[in-house]
Amino acid sequence: MSSTVGQVIRCRAAVAWEAGKPLVIEEVEVAPPQKMEVRMKILFTSLCHTDVYFWEAKGQTPLFPRIFGHEAGGIVESVGEGVTDLKPGDHVLPVFTGECKECRHCKSEESNMCDLLRINTDRGVMLNDGKTRFSKNGQPIYHFVGTSTFSEYTVIHVGCVAKINPAAPLDKVCVLSCGISTGLGATLNVAKPKKGSTVAIFGLGAVGLAAAEGARIAGASRIIGVDLNPNRFNEAKKFGVTEFVNPKDHSKPVQEVIAEMTDGGVDRSVECTGNFNAMISAFECVHDGWGVAVLVGVPNKDDAFKTHPMNFLNERTLKGTFFGNYKPRTDLPSVVEKYMNKELELEKFITHQVPFSEINKAFEYMLKGESIRCIITMEN
Amino acid sequence: MSSTVGQVIRCRAAVAWEAGKPLVIEEVEVAPPQKMEVRMKILFTSLCHTDVYFWEAKGQTPLFPRIFGHEAGGIVESVGEGVTDLKPGDHVLPVFTGECKECRHCKSEESNMCDLLRINTDRGVMLNDGKTRFSKNGQPIYHFVGTSTFSEYTVIHVGCVAKINPAAPLDKVCVLSCGISTGLGATLNVAKPKKGSTVAIFGLGAVGLAAAEGARIAGASRIIGVDLNPNRFNEAKKFGVTEFVNPKDHSKPVQEVIAEMTDGGVDRSVECTGNFNAMISAFECVHDGWGVAVLVGVPNKDDAFKTHPMNFLNERTLKGTFFGNYKPRTDLPSVVEKYMNKELELEKFITHQVPFSEINKAFEYMLKGESIRCIITMEN
Repeated sequence: MSSTVGQVIRCRAAVAWEAGKPLVIEEVEVAPPQKMEVRMKILFTSLCHTDVYFWEAKGQTPLFPRIFGHEAGGIVESVGEGVTDLKPGDHVLPVFTGECKECRHCKSEESNMCDLLRINTDRGVMLNDGKTRFSKNGQPIYHFVGTSTFSEYTVIHVGCVAKINPAAPLDKVCVLSCGISTGLGATLNVAKPKKGSTVAIFGLGAVGLAAAEGARIAGASRIIGVDLNPNRFNEAKKFGVTEFVNPKDHSKPVQEVIAEMTDGGVDRSVECTGNFNAMISAFECVHDGWGVAVLVGVPNKDDAFKTHPMNFLNERTLKGTFFGNYKPRTDLPSVVEKYMNKELELEKFITHQVPFSEINKAFEYMLKGESIRCIITMEN
Repeated sequence: MSSTVGQVIRCRAAVAWEAGKPLVIEEVEVAPPQKMEVRMKILFTSLCHTDVYFWEAKGQTPLFPRIFGHEAGGIVESVGEGVTDLKPGDHVLPVFTGECKECRHCKSEESNMCDLLRINTDRGVMLNDGKTRFSKNGQPIYHFVGTSTFSEYTVIHVGCVAKINPAAPLDKVCVLSCGISTGLGATLNVAKPKKGSTVAIFGLGAVGLAAAEGARIAGASRIIGVDLNPNRFNEAKKFGVTEFVNPKDHSKPVQEVIAEMTDGGVDRSVECTGNFNAMISAFECVHDGWGVAVLVGVPNKDDAFKTHPMNFLNERTLKGTFFGNYKPRTDLPSVVEKYMNKELELEKFITHQVPFSEINKAFEYMLKGESIRCIITMEN
């Protein structure tokens, strides 16, 4: 057993002191895990748009100082009271949403929206005592979505920790913590295209490319990528995208363009931008009789989804998904196995890599739109 | 073989000469069936709201004189060229929408919206030659949705004729031609509630009651009926409805009332009114994580379905259905069997019965809201 068990650990963490200002690598204190909590050593973490969105803190109540980060891979250092299914040394992925295994959602086959541990972007403290486990010279530092992986050690509720195959390379599978699983699951678990079918993907960022990867794995015959940025098409081909539509190139609505390309509409569509007009297009571009559209991208507060009800009556389906409908603890291990058996290709999502000391570069790559995923290596 | 084969048949039909005016029982001529057509003797027919809607001809291009009627049961009298799977004497149900068995929709497991024979309320002629098979003294009389069952004999495309068990009583199973199958299938084939689940039904007319009957058959634990008319609750109990909500009795939106009654929302809802506000309520009253809402009622041309996209993102599903997703020829025989084995109760839908000569009484019962289904007996 590690000598750190039960002790405060001093380690490096990238602290966001203010909205939009570069993170600062600080030495922080990480308290031991309490009841139903796990302390893990982070080996690799990656940057997701959601980190950037809450770091910029535009339109939300700012909560600083805070340690961001929610896509990561690491090893359990110690566990708190009541934790029975994890032990020090286990290889794990932290997840921004959880699975308590006891609520109605966790007991439902159809839902992954755990009542207890559903994502909460406003809460900066742990559930058990309403306090933080991070501090610097006695000043509390807030958590982010229960994970705070931009730290060499972090404390997480056991319900937000997925135990995975120890043979899986953590510098690759760490991207399965959030965006890649979200897009992949949206296609494989929710849209469920049949072999040979046509699929449209709206938005060719990391989540959209993962949705395309899902369509490729499912054996779709045509994968139509829709994006306002024409530079994304070349990259998207690696993920199985066969055709590209830029709405700016057409005078008619993109749903009509797609309907003409596909003799009435695609079999499935997946919306990964969060723009409400793209949501409407993604729904209206699926074929009547059998078309299914899946919403993934998160909308603004005041947006409205609007369509003529006959679009539904003509036997189209619209569904939304959260984290690709994966239950974090139950299902993530099998996604890791998809990578291990070479069904799922993760390397192509990883475009950049930086040491922890240069974490701000990862923010720059993302803000410039240059990266899909940038892996941040904790150990120099 | 009947002596009428290949001959014009003179028989009684209830002709609508003008919009909204009582039907007139006339002697009409019914031409023999042409290629891929069937001439059938109608024994029982019933009246559906769609007949009344197009008879009133409010907001549509009027097409008169016309023979209405699309829910019926009868016997094949003769068949035209190319018809191989029906023969004189077969017991059949005509259907307002068809199944050619050759188009993409018919070949899809998921759709019943046949490209060739999908409902067409504007067309008053047969597909083969663009002419009517009905006439009186040389004046053509138009067809209605390809069925025109308010006649002792009618001519129908073979794709719109379902062959059923000859042991089934046609005076009961004739109601399966349209509304009852529509509601039943919306629940059983599309909403698919699990045993023990909660279901809300919006609109307790014939279709909504059939949707409730589907929920009862599926073993729902609670069936919440929503209607503006409190008189409908008593009748609805026979169809398994356990609770009644009248939106007029509440100051808050009915979706909130239902969410409070059910700890967050029902598992499934089925919308059978066609009112767009009811559609929005039906969607928003299903539980996040797993709720499925199904739209059945047909909206007006200018209606819009509008909701916040987060309602989808929180893992709710919205689907529309047409004719309960039943493929007319393939699936209706099995619905008849559900009645034959006493799983499905049809008697309770049949509130009135009139002889053909009094068909206008059926319109009166429906317009007054007194009837669920009124059976019209062709033979006096």
